[in-house]
Amino acid sequence: MGEFDLIARYFARPARRSPLGVGDDCALLAPRPGMQLAVSSDMLVEGRHFFPDVYPAHLGHKALAVNLSDLAACGARPLAFTLALALPRVDAVWLEGFSQGLLALADAHGCELVGGDTTQGPLNICITVFGEVPASAALLRSGARPGDDVWLSGRTGQARLALDALRGQIHADDALLTLLRQRLERPMPRLALGQRLVGLASSAIDVSDGLLGDFSHILSASRVGARIDIDVATDLLAGCQRLQRAGGGFDRGLLMRCALAGGDDYELVFTAHPDRRDAVEAAGADSGTRVTRIGSIEAQPGLRLVDRTGAALNGRFPSFDHFAS
Amino acid sequence: MGEFDLIARYFARPARRSPLGVGDDCALLAPRPGMQLAVSSDMLVEGRHFFPDVYPAHLGHKALAVNLSDLAACGARPLAFTLALALPRVDAVWLEGFSQGLLALADAHGCELVGGDTTQGPLNICITVFGEVPASAALLRSGARPGDDVWLSGRTGQARLALDALRGQIHADDALLTLLRQRLERPMPRLALGQRLVGLASSAIDVSDGLLGDFSHILSASRVGARIDIDVATDLLAGCQRLQRAGGGFDRGLLMRCALAGGDDYELVFTAHPDRRDAVEAAGADSGTRVTRIGSIEAQPGLRLVDRTGAALNGRFPSFDHFAS
Repeated sequence: MGEFDLIARYFARPARRSPLGVGDDCALLAPRPGMQLAVSSDMLVEGRHFFPDVYPAHLGHKALAVNLSDLAACGARPLAFTLALALPRVDAVWLEGFSQGLLALADAHGCELVGGDTTQGPLNICITVFGEVPASAALLRSGARPGDDVWLSGRTGQARLALDALRGQIHADDALLTLLRQRLERPMPRLALGQRLVGLASSAIDVSDGLLGDFSHILSASRVGARIDIDVATDLLAGCQRLQRAGGGFDRGLLMRCALAGGDDYELVFTAHPDRRDAVEAAGADSGTRVTRIGSIEAQPGLRLVDRTGAALNGRFPSFDHFAS
Repeated sequence: MGEFDLIARYFARPARRSPLGVGDDCALLAPRPGMQLAVSSDMLVEGRHFFPDVYPAHLGHKALAVNLSDLAACGARPLAFTLALALPRVDAVWLEGFSQGLLALADAHGCELVGGDTTQGPLNICITVFGEVPASAALLRSGARPGDDVWLSGRTGQARLALDALRGQIHADDALLTLLRQRLERPMPRLALGQRLVGLASSAIDVSDGLLGDFSHILSASRVGARIDIDVATDLLAGCQRLQRAGGGFDRGLLMRCALAGGDDYELVFTAHPDRRDAVEAAGADSGTRVTRIGSIEAQPGLRLVDRTGAALNGRFPSFDHFAS
């Protein structure tokens, strides 16, 4: 048995829910009757998705969290995941931390490690996650209809502020950096909210590349347009009391760009019929998640940005794509 | 849309069998009633699993083939797969070839690409494959019983000969190298045989790291031992007519080591009760796959190697592990 077989022991645990866990050629999964299996894969690469000096435990957490966020966006309940891991060398301290962060989040959501692969190579983490969702009830990007409200969970922008601070592009003292970095490195996927939105939201997506950019995928998949009040998302970020207490006196233009196009947020943006406002608020309360209306779906294609007075603002934000890259 | 979103277009196809294909947060899969989902993940890294100058189409084929081989070892029928791909740069010629080789094999087995991820980074290919198998009928490593026959599909050793030739450790002329390289770079997973072995074989595993090494996983999972006639597997390789015609006059010691511990074969080694010999032969004939008895399971733990006269040979092969590395 080589050292790359041995490292699998950091992750080996008795299989519980799935018929067969780590250790055979395949893992076996059986969704319950009437359920479909939701599947998502994400690959994380050093230098692109995380800094080389990230805490291994935070990296383990985030690698699973970004996948669980895809399940949340579908309204699926996590069941299991596979982990494929390329490592330059076998580093016991790193593996200890990584597996601890990974498995703590997995346990918190009852998501079982059922298989995978380890190899030597440049650091690369590929997770495939499995959840179950009632047949034909998964939240999709394609269900938004004109007149629907547009909702956002939590608040966006803190992960981007962390990234800018770590790059030295903005100043943040230690206390503030610790706070921001927590949002960048330990995002909490909105699984409880996502499951409560099944049968309630008309469409959903998780925010990984920036609020407006990801929301635009709902518009194209649903063949609709939307009006978004950009002050609402900006106010959510600016009004974050922990941010204010920690001395985050950032200018509003920066906050606006981070809230609207920051990325790495792992919040949900979703749509629902206006008749369902109370139900959406209740879903948020039940899952301990702030939900805020940020706009509405319109028949006319395109994304129209307005401020709180209703004035159009598109011309003032020509390059969100550029900023987000 | 960045260039790494664009490359996903090389792989985008309309979803057929699965309820939802590429393009939403999750893919949705629904095994038929009474079926379980078999899942396997493999990660391929340049320099470790393939040479930098491999044909992209061959690499695409092999990346999926090694995963399908895991399904074959479980007796599962392929349904779908996800692809996560890290690339140093967007190279249209490479992507064209890679996707062509990948999707040709996928189509040949009705295995649908349902999702994935692309990112910039050192070349890394991570595939997770999904198949279905009747509930509680998957072939496992743990079912071998004393008295069972040990069977091998096809023949092992050609991929290792190819590797040695490409490394300049043995001489092979162009015609022979072409033949051998085909086996190394375009393995054909034994899916048809694997599905026919459900309910017939008592255990199975696919040969990726070497015949004896992988077979020993059956022994440990089943808590049994075995006697293997090493001349049988060696004769299968030495008797390969295409190899002989192409001038492969290799010494028997080399052939023996390649057949028994070469690796990258993607054949199946499996066990079955001696009462099922005719049925195993029929399964081989039905699936167009040679099947050969190479030994038998014994209650006494450990792997006993014998030659065709029955003489014990263990002392002569002290370092298969070393050779296989």
